[in-house]
Amino acid sequence: MAGKKLQGIGLPGSGCEWFWPGEDCRVPLDDRGLAYADGLFETLRVNHQGPVLMAEHRARLLHSAHQLEIPFGPTDFDEWQQQASQRGLLKCRAGNDQILKITLTRGSGGRGYGRPEKPRPRVLTARLQAPPIPQGSVKAQLCRYPVQVAPHRAGLKTLEKLDQVMASRELRGDVFEGLMPDSAGHIVEGTRSNLLLLLSDRHLVTPPSRSLAVQGTLRDWLIRELPTRGLRVRESALTLSMLKRAQGVAVVNSVFGVVPLAELDGVTLGQHPLLEDIRDWCAQQIGLAAGTT
Amino acid sequence: MAGKKLQGIGLPGSGCEWFWPGEDCRVPLDDRGLAYADGLFETLRVNHQGPVLMAEHRARLLHSAHQLEIPFGPTDFDEWQQQASQRGLLKCRAGNDQILKITLTRGSGGRGYGRPEKPRPRVLTARLQAPPIPQGSVKAQLCRYPVQVAPHRAGLKTLEKLDQVMASRELRGDVFEGLMPDSAGHIVEGTRSNLLLLLSDRHLVTPPSRSLAVQGTLRDWLIRELPTRGLRVRESALTLSMLKRAQGVAVVNSVFGVVPLAELDGVTLGQHPLLEDIRDWCAQQIGLAAGTT
Repeated sequence: MAGKKLQGIGLPGSGCEWFWPGEDCRVPLDDRGLAYADGLFETLRVNHQGPVLMAEHRARLLHSAHQLEIPFGPTDFDEWQQQASQRGLLKCRAGNDQILKITLTRGSGGRGYGRPEKPRPRVLTARLQAPPIPQGSVKAQLCRYPVQVAPHRAGLKTLEKLDQVMASRELRGDVFEGLMPDSAGHIVEGTRSNLLLLLSDRHLVTPPSRSLAVQGTLRDWLIRELPTRGLRVRESALTLSMLKRAQGVAVVNSVFGVVPLAELDGVTLGQHPLLEDIRDWCAQQIGLAAGTT
Repeated sequence: MAGKKLQGIGLPGSGCEWFWPGEDCRVPLDDRGLAYADGLFETLRVNHQGPVLMAEHRARLLHSAHQLEIPFGPTDFDEWQQQASQRGLLKCRAGNDQILKITLTRGSGGRGYGRPEKPRPRVLTARLQAPPIPQGSVKAQLCRYPVQVAPHRAGLKTLEKLDQVMASRELRGDVFEGLMPDSAGHIVEGTRSNLLLLLSDRHLVTPPSRSLAVQGTLRDWLIRELPTRGLRVRESALTLSMLKRAQGVAVVNSVFGVVPLAELDGVTLGQHPLLEDIRDWCAQQIGLAAGTT
């Protein structure tokens, strides 16, 4: 049954099932990603230059798979990349950016929560039209639904996303992103982004990685690369009053880059031009063009 | 595409997609249960008398759907039950018990975490051979992997089950169940069961519902019905030393009933005959036979 919908079986011995866009792609009901959220995903922006932050997405996917003990290693990822490239999925026409979503599940079976002895992971690739990258700054909203971070899986982009789903239902009108508190009242991250704050002393801060549901690839890239611009990002727990007092607040992810917030729940936030500079510089470095659809 | 694999479309206006055993049942990759664990499930034991604790499973499924705001109400459940009955899924030959797994997802689509405006939930019914109900008492193991309870979803049997998957991998040999601690070190529940303790004063306790990842149907049934036997269960956080000092410890769920533990990590636990009495009485009341496969 499993073989019917397959294309592009991986390397001999890779032991994965591969699913590609454009087919009647469906997974069996005993897929563990569906049954138990036993898997993870990555969302890559692809433009005419190629995928954005591919190395970082690769590293996070492999790290997450390792943490969940899903047998999917560097060779398997490279096989994915090669097959995706052959299918023309890693490039697109200028102005027609795409999103590639790679979902990796542990595959079928196992009795109850116990895992199959010889798991055969599934790699599901989907392609979607990329959303436009906003120009200027955007509105945000503080969600009431809190984010809960499982300490042993902090930062991993697993399939457990009910917090984000439940928080997203609160977003109204032209709000671009919802910010999520934890149960202690710290503001941890957006539903689909991390936070970057410019404090009054021109220091940049972002919440600690151990507090994050998703440790974003762009967040890590910024922490690593901003020092080349003479700037540093340090990790610190954020409160609502810190956001309101800050010189600037941005939401960041590798799909839309660095996007400064104009207001939060109708309250105007700081608008220091440094965040705009970082946005433009980052977009140039990783290959994003504002307004691109 | 969605229509191809369907059978038994629900009542006009019910707005669900139904999947039944015995077909080439597969869900599209954009199913939100697969993408974001945006759904829930129930696991029912079915024997020659019918489903075990059907009313309780129905109530929990409807409550969970309501909490997740998945449009699936009493009429939809009754439609499921009627169709399942017509397919002969709610009875089986004596000695050949079955498990029905009902998975309810929000269906396809929506952009990112945001939910589709008009969700069309999917009801996936799977049937499995029921595991044997152990006779006598069994061994348990304390898992190192902690359970994390999202306060807003405490007790709901959602598709987010990575804690249970990760804890289950620790189970060795003939261990029947793994007990999971929370981050504060309390012993909260088993990977697939709740806990029932007999304290030295013959009082029964079980961890508080707000601390539970899954609020079991049998746990609630016992709290409600034991008073008819002159016994009460009160809620209390449990520590490891309480388990070791108790007159008896049992794991409970509606698939295997009340199962006393003989030992935990090789340490012999209390073996008061009252737990055996409760096991036998409960099995008779809800319709379970020890040793039944």
